[in-house]
Amino acid sequence: MSEDPLVIFTPSGKRARVPAGTTVLAAARRMGVDLDSVCGGRGICSKCQVAPQIGQHTKHGVTVQDDALSGWNAVEARYDEKRGLKPGRRLGCQAEICGDVVLDVPPESQVHRQVIRKAATAREIRMDPATRLYFVEVDEPDMQEPSGDLERLNRALKAQWDLGPVEAPLPLLRKLQPVLRKGGFRVTLAVHQAHRGPARLIDIWPGLYESGLYGLAIDLGSTTIAAHLCDLDTGAVLASAGLMNPQIRFGEDLMSRVSYSMMNPGGDIEMTRAVREAMDQLAADIAAEARVAPAAIVEAVIVCNPVMHHLLLGIDPVELGQAPFALSTSDAVECATAELDLTRLNPCARAYLLPCIAGHVGADAAAVALSEEPGKQDELSLIVDVGTNAEILLGDRNGVLACSSPTGPAFEGAQISSGQRAANGAIDAVRIDPDTKDVRFRVIGSDLWSDDPAFDFEVTGICGSGIIEALAEMRSAGIIDASGLIGSAEQVGTDRLRADNRTHQFVLYETADRTISVTQNDVRAIQLAKSALYAGARLLMDERGVDKVDRVVLAGAFGAHISPKHAMILGMIPDVPLDKVTSAGNAAGTGARIALLNRASRAEIEQTVRRIHKVETAIEPRFQEHFVAANALPHATDPFPELRKIASLPDVSFNTGGEDGRQRRRRRKI
Amino acid sequence: MSEDPLVIFTPSGKRARVPAGTTVLAAARRMGVDLDSVCGGRGICSKCQVAPQIGQHTKHGVTVQDDALSGWNAVEARYDEKRGLKPGRRLGCQAEICGDVVLDVPPESQVHRQVIRKAATAREIRMDPATRLYFVEVDEPDMQEPSGDLERLNRALKAQWDLGPVEAPLPLLRKLQPVLRKGGFRVTLAVHQAHRGPARLIDIWPGLYESGLYGLAIDLGSTTIAAHLCDLDTGAVLASAGLMNPQIRFGEDLMSRVSYSMMNPGGDIEMTRAVREAMDQLAADIAAEARVAPAAIVEAVIVCNPVMHHLLLGIDPVELGQAPFALSTSDAVECATAELDLTRLNPCARAYLLPCIAGHVGADAAAVALSEEPGKQDELSLIVDVGTNAEILLGDRNGVLACSSPTGPAFEGAQISSGQRAANGAIDAVRIDPDTKDVRFRVIGSDLWSDDPAFDFEVTGICGSGIIEALAEMRSAGIIDASGLIGSAEQVGTDRLRADNRTHQFVLYETADRTISVTQNDVRAIQLAKSALYAGARLLMDERGVDKVDRVVLAGAFGAHISPKHAMILGMIPDVPLDKVTSAGNAAGTGARIALLNRASRAEIEQTVRRIHKVETAIEPRFQEHFVAANALPHATDPFPELRKIASLPDVSFNTGGEDGRQRRRRRKI
Repeated sequence: MSEDPLVIFTPSGKRARVPAGTTVLAAARRMGVDLDSVCGGRGICSKCQVAPQIGQHTKHGVTVQDDALSGWNAVEARYDEKRGLKPGRRLGCQAEICGDVVLDVPPESQVHRQVIRKAATAREIRMDPATRLYFVEVDEPDMQEPSGDLERLNRALKAQWDLGPVEAPLPLLRKLQPVLRKGGFRVTLAVHQAHRGPARLIDIWPGLYESGLYGLAIDLGSTTIAAHLCDLDTGAVLASAGLMNPQIRFGEDLMSRVSYSMMNPGGDIEMTRAVREAMDQLAADIAAEARVAPAAIVEAVIVCNPVMHHLLLGIDPVELGQAPFALSTSDAVECATAELDLTRLNPCARAYLLPCIAGHVGADAAAVALSEEPGKQDELSLIVDVGTNAEILLGDRNGVLACSSPTGPAFEGAQISSGQRAANGAIDAVRIDPDTKDVRFRVIGSDLWSDDPAFDFEVTGICGSGIIEALAEMRSAGIIDASGLIGSAEQVGTDRLRADNRTHQFVLYETADRTISVTQNDVRAIQLAKSALYAGARLLMDERGVDKVDRVVLAGAFGAHISPKHAMILGMIPDVPLDKVTSAGNAAGTGARIALLNRASRAEIEQTVRRIHKVETAIEPRFQEHFVAANALPHATDPFPELRKIASLPDVSFNTGGEDGRQRRRRRKI
Repeated sequence: MSEDPLVIFTPSGKRARVPAGTTVLAAARRMGVDLDSVCGGRGICSKCQVAPQIGQHTKHGVTVQDDALSGWNAVEARYDEKRGLKPGRRLGCQAEICGDVVLDVPPESQVHRQVIRKAATAREIRMDPATRLYFVEVDEPDMQEPSGDLERLNRALKAQWDLGPVEAPLPLLRKLQPVLRKGGFRVTLAVHQAHRGPARLIDIWPGLYESGLYGLAIDLGSTTIAAHLCDLDTGAVLASAGLMNPQIRFGEDLMSRVSYSMMNPGGDIEMTRAVREAMDQLAADIAAEARVAPAAIVEAVIVCNPVMHHLLLGIDPVELGQAPFALSTSDAVECATAELDLTRLNPCARAYLLPCIAGHVGADAAAVALSEEPGKQDELSLIVDVGTNAEILLGDRNGVLACSSPTGPAFEGAQISSGQRAANGAIDAVRIDPDTKDVRFRVIGSDLWSDDPAFDFEVTGICGSGIIEALAEMRSAGIIDASGLIGSAEQVGTDRLRADNRTHQFVLYETADRTISVTQNDVRAIQLAKSALYAGARLLMDERGVDKVDRVVLAGAFGAHISPKHAMILGMIPDVPLDKVTSAGNAAGTGARIALLNRASRAEIEQTVRRIHKVETAIEPRFQEHFVAANALPHATDPFPELRKIASLPDVSFNTGGEDGRQRRRRRKI
């Protein structure tokens, strides 16, 4: 009976005896239990709530009496009266342990709560944001011992939170004095303590600030800019928004933007201004949508390819347009968002750009590596992020390789005769009857197939995943041969095939005023793109010394919509069992979110990127060999045994010595 | 004969044997001899020049043969051909030691050369600026091992100079790539490595940059802003310039500027803008005067009083206008000059503000402490920096005390009936014949006394040092009594005394259209100022437990012009032997220069300021007592034995129960 009370925290299961009279918060700190507190035990923030579990706990071998915790004291009673405490909850900083007790720490009381990252894979992010709130009581100024308000604030932060000293930017030195006085020298600080560098004061509020801190995870693509607004306390995504990258007016793809900068002195400055303004607008929009004060946005994590990386930072990307593709800086960049002209966020907010892997493999690829963690897997994974360029990662616990392959924009529906961006009305799925060659399709915006009597939707074109399916179905139905040549109406036996100069086109859809067809040029464009993709993957496999991979992960928006079987029929990706091809969704965006919510992940990805072995496709002679061999559908030499198990491809040939005899060369694109 | 050659460096006297074939630069580095090099031994910067001393050296016990150093190699010959090497000089990085040799390191080849600070005291500053030049050869980019240009630059800096990694601000990331390529990956870096914080890249030039780096030492006063442009290599002051503080239009003295801010919302922002614009203009002017490119100015050290400190940093000084006179920050501030809107300097230049001692004792007083080093003296020194406020330091090796005393602007000629700023035409020296009461004086702009037949200069008023001398002479001549009362013409016996309401005035100078006189109000204004000064000094002496000091140092421009004897007759300063009163000139400005040229001095003054014991005159009851007692000329109770040895003051009294009976109170000024 004289033993100290036993305290057991759930869900951690941590248990220890503590002297009677210890507060729950003090016990949790001593035992290393993750129990939050912003006010530092003053009974005002309520972050340290726990739920005592009264009754018998056979599992833990204890029985918890009603009086295992002390009764409400004045502080707790006042809090309940003013703010209301949920039934069964206690303030951990006030309740004292009097007897054996089991205490449940609800998720919202955990600092490092786990956030379910995405339903598909159910991976979790451990909350540990760089910017957090700290309530401090600062000594009032004393003429006998004159010291600045900042110096006394730092003393308080050290004594009460073992943190700092913080550096205060000039705008906060200006704000410091009135806020301290308004709060009666009790203030809440937002402190940014990244994985490296000094602690920085980001903002200060009188008294206890309770409106939350927010961060932006931004995926800055060549075509679109997407942002998630995240609650830095809960990790929740409060709003997501995107807009077109306004740099498109300077050039559709990255290489044309680099050219624009080369041809137009100051062109890079124009492009920098454009993308910064767009990002600033996006931040304002997303804050408005989530009804969050823009000044409460204190961090932005940005992932992007190397050209966007340089243009955002105000660096002329000209070196990225020519060998040896030198980056100005490859390490992660930490700076003030104000330096990037992001004026709508908190004026002292911080930006973090993930490191670039190489001149062609950017911070977006690093973010994919952070999200997908190939280096932590037993299986050898090939991760393909398909955009205007494909970033390819190959690896397992033994190491990770990376390259970038210039697929061009065909996979995005560009350079395709009836191609369009993935938007309402675009064909995104195609089926062709192998016997009749009849076509049915689905369009974005409708769930019905086109042969459904109820189908009634304007068909406007074909998007990237639609053209992949169309080509794969055409190959399966014997409409195009292994060399990619489209047969004639006579050879194939369908009037959907029409002569088109010296080649043929296949009509998917036709009305009085619109014909959507697949032309020979379309097939060639996709062949170039897929050859580049496959050759990049093969190059990494060569480097690794393997002939096959265990799994393929398709990342990027395109990866989310592509049909793995059709991709494999076209030989876009190496041969693996179909169930080993998965989509990772917007893995780059997810990587940005991880880096936003967990500062340790920044150190981790910086380390990881240093260890990634980079392969430069542009200077590798084997790339050209692989590229040529990959031109066939699915491939000239690789056997694709897994594909043969699930699809039989007719052994047709339409070559009559014409167009197909020509070899094509292509301009390298980045 | 088989022994390694003996090498002796002068003036250090360091000696050691080194293997034959060692270069002079390598030997110097190994032996810890201070031999400069910017290019790191590549034979292009010529900073490592030495002068071999051929012949017999009895003192060192060696004879140096003609062939003690290797002959010129191709690098040295090319340097001489292109740039010319002074006779007798060799490039230390090329010349190899072949036999016993005595090598003189001329001052310009020393990194840490000593700079004579000022002729008067002949103290020296050891050159060790925070920003220095480094020539590096950076690896060219390699596609096989992709890394950013910055990362390779940092690798070179580490390997070739054991420095860094440096942080590069975004404008330099932009500049990095073109400059590296222009220089063939051989570049000169300006790196700022302060006494704390990370190393920062300040600028980069292709090839070897030889135009020098410069810094500004700025004394930002309430009335004037003075700047010295210093060569960060030699320490030489290339130009000095000053301008009026444009904040004067918001208020003559500091308190009225604080009031302006209190009364006018946004007033502090106006004042911040005004002072920043003026400093920026001053920087441009001084660079133009010295024919130095403004972008070559990479540092600014600023000293100022607390109100100017806050206004420069963009902090509302309102708290400094009321007890407890809390500073927003008291520690030293290091920031980008761009943050202070100093746009004419190098865009990445750094600013350093010395720490403030207390809410009334600013970075200017800290600079005086750095320059005068009272804490390193055996003698107990009283250092008085007289401006609108007087900052007073008292100390020796056992400790230093500081306070600020509200002298008001009378010492600067303000609030004086014929007062004016120290400018041409102002009376700055006065002599009165004790018998005849005849007056002679000197004016600024002329070396002649007014009784010289050749004297012919327009007399416009009387400046601060002039009014001190006038009053002291009037006291010595029996024209005013110990209580400060001016006698009548009858009492004193001179028609230079005129009735002036119920008091009298003494005429120094009179023409048809101008009368320059000393009125009773003038005497009262000076009495108030000198009482405040003396009371502050006494308060520190009380705190220290002493009745007298060993020496008095008068700092500030006023201190440079004041006559110690006259100051002592008025009882401005405690009684010491006259030869123990010295002028330190603009000690605050000198402190700024020291901090600019020697980074270790920044750490030193930050430490020193923390140890200084601050005394707040505003809340100290004894201050008022001392103030009242100090009203008399020289003093009501203190005996002033040293003064009595050199001056006899007539024991007159003109009190007839009139004006002098009233006690005056004064509004506290900061």
